[in-house]
Amino acid sequence: MAGNSFGKLFRLTTFGESHGEAIGGIIDGCPAGLTIDLEKIQQEMDRRKPGQSAIVTQRKEPDSVKFLSGIFEGKTTGTPIGFTIENSNQKSNDYSHIKDVYRPSHADYTYDQKYGNRDYRGGGRSSARETACRVAAGAIAKQLLQDIKITAYTSSVGGIQLQKKFQELELSEIEKNPVRCPDSETAKRMETYIKEIRSQGDTVGGVVECVISNVPKGLGEPVFDKLHAAMGAAMLSINAVKGFEYGSGFAGSAMKGSEHNDLFEPDGSTISNFSGGIQGGISNGMDIVFRVAFKPVATIMQKQKTINAEGQEVEMKGKGRHDPCVVPRAIPIVEAMAALVLADYYLLNRTSKI
Amino acid sequence: MAGNSFGKLFRLTTFGESHGEAIGGIIDGCPAGLTIDLEKIQQEMDRRKPGQSAIVTQRKEPDSVKFLSGIFEGKTTGTPIGFTIENSNQKSNDYSHIKDVYRPSHADYTYDQKYGNRDYRGGGRSSARETACRVAAGAIAKQLLQDIKITAYTSSVGGIQLQKKFQELELSEIEKNPVRCPDSETAKRMETYIKEIRSQGDTVGGVVECVISNVPKGLGEPVFDKLHAAMGAAMLSINAVKGFEYGSGFAGSAMKGSEHNDLFEPDGSTISNFSGGIQGGISNGMDIVFRVAFKPVATIMQKQKTINAEGQEVEMKGKGRHDPCVVPRAIPIVEAMAALVLADYYLLNRTSKI
Amino acid sequence: MAGNSFGKLFRLTTFGESHGEAIGGIIDGCPAGLTIDLEKIQQEMDRRKPGQSAIVTQRKEPDSVKFLSGIFEGKTTGTPIGFTIENSNQKSNDYSHIKDVYRPSHADYTYDQKYGNRDYRGGGRSSARETACRVAAGAIAKQLLQDIKITAYTSSVGGIQLQKKFQELELSEIEKNPVRCPDSETAKRMETYIKEIRSQGDTVGGVVECVISNVPKGLGEPVFDKLHAAMGAAMLSINAVKGFEYGSGFAGSAMKGSEHNDLFEPDGSTISNFSGGIQGGISNGMDIVFRVAFKPVATIMQKQKTINAEGQEVEMKGKGRHDPCVVPRAIPIVEAMAALVLADYYLLNRTSKI
Amino acid sequence: MAGNSFGKLFRLTTFGESHGEAIGGIIDGCPAGLTIDLEKIQQEMDRRKPGQSAIVTQRKEPDSVKFLSGIFEGKTTGTPIGFTIENSNQKSNDYSHIKDVYRPSHADYTYDQKYGNRDYRGGGRSSARETACRVAAGAIAKQLLQDIKITAYTSSVGGIQLQKKFQELELSEIEKNPVRCPDSETAKRMETYIKEIRSQGDTVGGVVECVISNVPKGLGEPVFDKLHAAMGAAMLSINAVKGFEYGSGFAGSAMKGSEHNDLFEPDGSTISNFSGGIQGGISNGMDIVFRVAFKPVATIMQKQKTINAEGQEVEMKGKGRHDPCVVPRAIPIVEAMAALVLADYYLLNRTSKI
Repeated sequence: MAGNSFGKLFRLTTFGESHGEAIGGIIDGCPAGLTIDLEKIQQEMDRRKPGQSAIVTQRKEPDSVKFLSGIFEGKTTGTPIGFTIENSNQKSNDYSHIKDVYRPSHADYTYDQKYGNRDYRGGGRSSARETACRVAAGAIAKQLLQDIKITAYTSSVGGIQLQKKFQELELSEIEKNPVRCPDSETAKRMETYIKEIRSQGDTVGGVVECVISNVPKGLGEPVFDKLHAAMGAAMLSINAVKGFEYGSGFAGSAMKGSEHNDLFEPDGSTISNFSGGIQGGISNGMDIVFRVAFKPVATIMQKQKTINAEGQEVEMKGKGRHDPCVVPRAIPIVEAMAALVLADYYLLNRTSKI
Repeated sequence: MAGNSFGKLFRLTTFGESHGEAIGGIIDGCPAGLTIDLEKIQQEMDRRKPGQSAIVTQRKEPDSVKFLSGIFEGKTTGTPIGFTIENSNQKSNDYSHIKDVYRPSHADYTYDQKYGNRDYRGGGRSSARETACRVAAGAIAKQLLQDIKITAYTSSVGGIQLQKKFQELELSEIEKNPVRCPDSETAKRMETYIKEIRSQGDTVGGVVECVISNVPKGLGEPVFDKLHAAMGAAMLSINAVKGFEYGSGFAGSAMKGSEHNDLFEPDGSTISNFSGGIQGGISNGMDIVFRVAFKPVATIMQKQKTINAEGQEVEMKGKGRHDPCVVPRAIPIVEAMAALVLADYYLLNRTSKI
Repeated sequence: MAGNSFGKLFRLTTFGESHGEAIGGIIDGCPAGLTIDLEKIQQEMDRRKPGQSAIVTQRKEPDSVKFLSGIFEGKTTGTPIGFTIENSNQKSNDYSHIKDVYRPSHADYTYDQKYGNRDYRGGGRSSARETACRVAAGAIAKQLLQDIKITAYTSSVGGIQLQKKFQELELSEIEKNPVRCPDSETAKRMETYIKEIRSQGDTVGGVVECVISNVPKGLGEPVFDKLHAAMGAAMLSINAVKGFEYGSGFAGSAMKGSEHNDLFEPDGSTISNFSGGIQGGISNGMDIVFRVAFKPVATIMQKQKTINAEGQEVEMKGKGRHDPCVVPRAIPIVEAMAALVLADYYLLNRTSKI
Repeated sequence: MAGNSFGKLFRLTTFGESHGEAIGGIIDGCPAGLTIDLEKIQQEMDRRKPGQSAIVTQRKEPDSVKFLSGIFEGKTTGTPIGFTIENSNQKSNDYSHIKDVYRPSHADYTYDQKYGNRDYRGGGRSSARETACRVAAGAIAKQLLQDIKITAYTSSVGGIQLQKKFQELELSEIEKNPVRCPDSETAKRMETYIKEIRSQGDTVGGVVECVISNVPKGLGEPVFDKLHAAMGAAMLSINAVKGFEYGSGFAGSAMKGSEHNDLFEPDGSTISNFSGGIQGGISNGMDIVFRVAFKPVATIMQKQKTINAEGQEVEMKGKGRHDPCVVPRAIPIVEAMAALVLADYYLLNRTSKI
C-alpha cells in the first residue's frame, strides 16, 4: 500500500535512501528457468550511473548490483530475487546547508507535511538514486521479454526538438552521443545547449520518446488496467515527470475521427499508428510509442529565496554535483519501467483464456 | 488482477456490458458513518448521461442507480456498497452490421486477439457505458471528500482552445453551456464547431482540464504511487484518452529550473504553481491542476475501409447515435475518477504517521 | 482492503446484507472461453439453501442467481461476471426484538465497536446469507477446474464422529441423507441427535471433512501463500468456523518423524498421506484432505441473559427459523471456498515457469 | 502474487535462501515516528536462532539484522525498512548427499514439479531459515503495537500436554526453560522426551498456544478477512504447521450453543471466552487465544527409503544439525506472525469510520 511495490505478477519492491549504506529491492514473481546475463544488467546500470559523460552529474557511483537470492547456477529459480546496490558515495555533510531549509520544487516540504520528519541528507526516498533499483529490475524484465525491443531516446531538450518521426530514425545512433538523441546533428545542438545552461548554474527539462516493437497482441486489461494506463503510471512515477502521452497524444485531440482512425491491412496491422500500438487498452501488435515530459531539475546553482522549517525566509544556493538536464540519464529508466510494465502484463495475459 | 477494480482502500469494482440487463459495481472500503445524499449522486449521473443536449448522442438512458447494500438509514455502514444501473436502451440488432467486422481504432480486433471472442453488441467492456459506474462511485467519493472541490471543464475542442489560465476562469459558467467550457464565448465557438463536424458525419477530439482545490497536504506516496501517477493512471483508464499532464506538463519540459521552481511564501504556499499542487508525488496544499487529452470518437458516419474476422477487406459506415465529441460528457467522468483517487489516498494517508 | 474480495487472479468480490433487496458479487479474472452450465450452478445453490430438509432452518429462499454480465452465448468472455441473488424472504420485523440487544457470541457487539453502527436486521454482513454468493462463484470455479473433484461431507456432529478414514468412504452416500455424512448408519444417529437438540431449543457444532482428488502437482506458493495457508484462510472466513487442519493435523503433532514421513513410490506418489496432499505449501498430486470445525450456532431458542447497547442486563430468546446445526448446509460452502482457492492457484501457477 | 509478501498496509516482503550470502526483507507501510529499539529486535532474533540450548540444532548462526533504510535518528521515517541477515554458516557440501534425492515429506519433490528446478543446498525458500526475516519484522510490529501483549508457549510435545488453562499459567516461566513451556514440571518432562527422541535419531511434533491481551476492539474485517482467518493463514504459512484453531477450536465443535455462548458482563466483556477474543471476525477486547499444530521435523537421522529425480529407489539418512522438535524455536515465530497480522489490522482499522 505504501507505494514501494510496482507490478502485480512481476513485482518489484524497493527500499533505500541515497544516504544509507545501500539501496536495494526484491523482484517477486519472475518465472523459473530464465537464464540471466549479469553483464547485460550491469550495462543498463552503467547507462544510468552518474559521471558517464561531460553533460551529467560528475558524482562517482559504480552502481554495481549484488544479487543475493533467486538466481542459481545462472538461472532464475522462481523465488524472489533480492539485490542491493551500495551507496559508495554518500557524504552526509554535503547536505548540511539544506538541513532546515525547504528547497523550492523539491519534496522537502511535502515529506515533512506527510511524515512529520524528513531525511535531509539528499532527499530520502525522493532522491533519484532510487531509480537505480528500477534499472536493475528492468534489466531482468528485459531478459524475460526476449524478442520485445524497447528503445527510448531524447526527443527534446528545452526548446530543441527532434523533428523526425520515429519511423525515420536511426536508433543505432542513440548511444553514440551523450544526449542519447538518434539524430547526430540535433544531438550536437542539445549538448551545446545543456553545457550553456550548466554554465549559467541553471537546468532545463526535456522529453523522452520510447518505441517498443515486437509486442505480442493482447497485452493489457480492458477497463482500469489498460496497458497505456499502467505505462502512464509507470512513467509518471519517475522523478521529475510532468506528462505522458501515447500514439497521437495531445496532438490527437485536435484531429478529426476521419483522419485519426487507423485503417487495417488484411493481416490486422494498421496503415497509420495514431493508436500508438494500443486499442481499447490492449496491444494490437503495432509499435507502442509514447512520450514522457521531464521538468527542469529543481536544484540550481543560483541563489533562490525560500523558507526554513520555521517559515522564515532564507536564501539558498545549490551545492554539489547535479545534472543540468535529467533527460539523458532518464533514458534507461524509462526503458526499465516500460520493461517492468510489459513483463507484468505479459504474465497476466497467460490467464486471459482457458 | 483482471483489472476491473480501482483503488486500494476505497476500492471500486465494476461489471457489465452495454448490452446486458444491467451494469453495476461494488464500492468496498467506504468508511462507516457517511451521510449519503442520493440526489447529488443522480445529478452526477445526469451530467454524464446521453441525450442531455443537442451536441451529444441522442440515445435515451435514464441511468438511475439502484443501491443494494452498504447504506442503512441514510448512512454508510462500512460494508460494501453494491449497485446496479439498468441498460434500459439496449437493442442488439443495432449492431448486426458490425458483428463480423473490426471497426477501425476500436477495441474489436484487440479483444478478439486477447480473449478469442468478443461481444459484438456494442463493444462489451470497451463501451463507454462502463463509465456510468465510475460516475456513481465517484459521486460517493466526492461526498466523503467534503471540502475538497473538484472541477473539470472543456479546455479545447479540435483546434479551439480556451486561452485563459484556470485562475482567471469563471467556474460557475461551466454548467451553463452544453460544451462545459467556462468561457461563454469560446463555448459558443466550440458548440458551433461540434455541430459542423457532426453534420459531416465526422468526430473531433479535445482536452479536459481539471482543478482541485482545498486538497489536504500530504496525500500521495513517495515512489511508485505518487499522487500524480495514480491520477494519471485514473485518467488514462478513461475511454479515448491519449495523454495526461499536470502542472506545467509538456510545456514545462521546455523551461529552465530558474523559471520553473515554485518559490515559497512564508506559510508554505507557493507564488507560482508549476508543480500543479504535487511535489515529489505528494500534495502540497496548492490547487492540483491537470489536463487530459481525448482522441476523436472512432465511430464516424462516413464510409471506411476495414477488414472482417477473416481478414477480408470490407466497407463499413457507423450507425446509431454517437457523440461527435466525447469531451462534454467526459467532464463528470474525469471528476469522478479524480474523486476516486483522492478518496483512496485520503484514507491511505491515515496510516502515514503513528 | 476492506475484506470483501477473495482471491488474486480468480477473484470474487461480494456485497449485500440479508435484509437488503439483493446480495451479489463480481467474479473477476475468470478466463475467457469457459462453457458455463447454469443448471449445475443452481444445483449447488440448492444444496446450500434453507428449507431443503427437516433438520435445517425452514426459511424459504429460492436463491436463484441472476447473471448480469461476463457470459455470452453460453461461454465466459473473460470480462467480470456480475450476479445478484434476491432476498425474497426478508422481513425486517422479525428482528425488532434484537434491535438494541447484543446477542451473545454473535457479531452484534463487535460490529458496533468497529463501525459505530450496525444493521440490526439479521446481522448485516455477518449473516450467513452472504455465503450464497460464495457458492455461486464456487460453482463457476468448479467448472473451470474440470477434472479436479472436491467432495466435502459431515465428519462429526456434536460428539458423534464418523469413524472411517476417507479412503474407506462411499462418497456417493453423501447426498442421500440430510446430514451429508457418507456413512448411512452414522448419518442416522447424527440426524436423530440434531432433532433432539432442536427440540431442546439448543444447537450443536460439528466437523466437515473435505477431500480433493486429481489436483495437479505444483499448486501453491512457497512462503506466505502456501496452498494450505490459503485454504485455511478460506475456511476460517466461513461463519462459525473455529479451526482448520489438513493431512495429519493436530493428531500429527503427537507423532514421530519416522512414523509421519510419507515415503515415495517410484512414480512420485506416496504410500501414506499424512502430508494431506501438500508439501512445503505446494500440491504433490495426492488427495488434499482437510477438516473444518464449526461451533454451535449462537442463536438458541432458550432464554439467555445479555446486555443492550446501554450496557443494561436484559433477557432475550431467539426467534425465527434457525439451523440447529450448520454443518449439513456448510458442506457446499466448504466445497465452494475450496474451489475458489484452487481456481486462483491454478491460474497463478501458469506463471511459475518461463 | 508469488507469495513472498505478507500484509496489506503493514507489509513484509522477504527474499533469500539458506545458502545464499544473505536473506532479508522489506517492511513497507510502517508509520513514521515510531522509536525503534534495536536491542529488543536482536532479543527476538536470539530467541529463534539455532544453538541457544541443548535441545535445539547446534548450528551456529549469529542472526544479526542489518537495517539499511527507513530508520533515521532512531525513528521510522515512514519509508520502507530494508534489512539483511547474513548466512554466516552456509556450507554447501553438507548437502551433496541430497542433491539428486527427494527427501520424504520435504518440499524437494513439489519444488521440482512446480519450478522445474530446485536449490538442493538446504531446501531453498522452503528452509525454515526464511523465518528469521519474519522474526525481525515481527519485532518491529511488536514495537508499533505497544500495549498489546503477545505471548506464545509450548502447549504440547508429542503426547505430553500442558494440562492447565491459559488463565492459570505463569507466563513468566516460559523463558526459564529451553522448551518454553510455562509449567516447569511439564517442561522438564518435555525436555527429557525431546532428548530421548533425538538419541533415537527421530523427531517429534508439538503444539504452540498463543495468548494476546490488551487487543483493541474492532480489529478484523467482516467477511473474507476475518481476524482469525488472517491469523490462521499467518500460522499455516510457518513451516511444518498442520493445523490452527482459536477459542474453543475443534473441541468447540462438540459443544452445544447453550454451553458455548459467551455471556456478556455489563461492560461488554464476556464471562467465558470460547470465542477466543474474536466474534464475527472482529476482536471484542477479550484475550485472543489460538493453538498451532506442528508436525515432526521431516529430517531424521535414520535410514529411509526414498526416490531420486529419476524415480529410482534409493536409501538416505539425514546429516547435519537439525532440530529434534521445532516447537521451542517456533515460539518467537508464532509471536512474530501474530504481531504482523495485528499491526496490519490495526492500521486497516484506522479507515473503518469517517
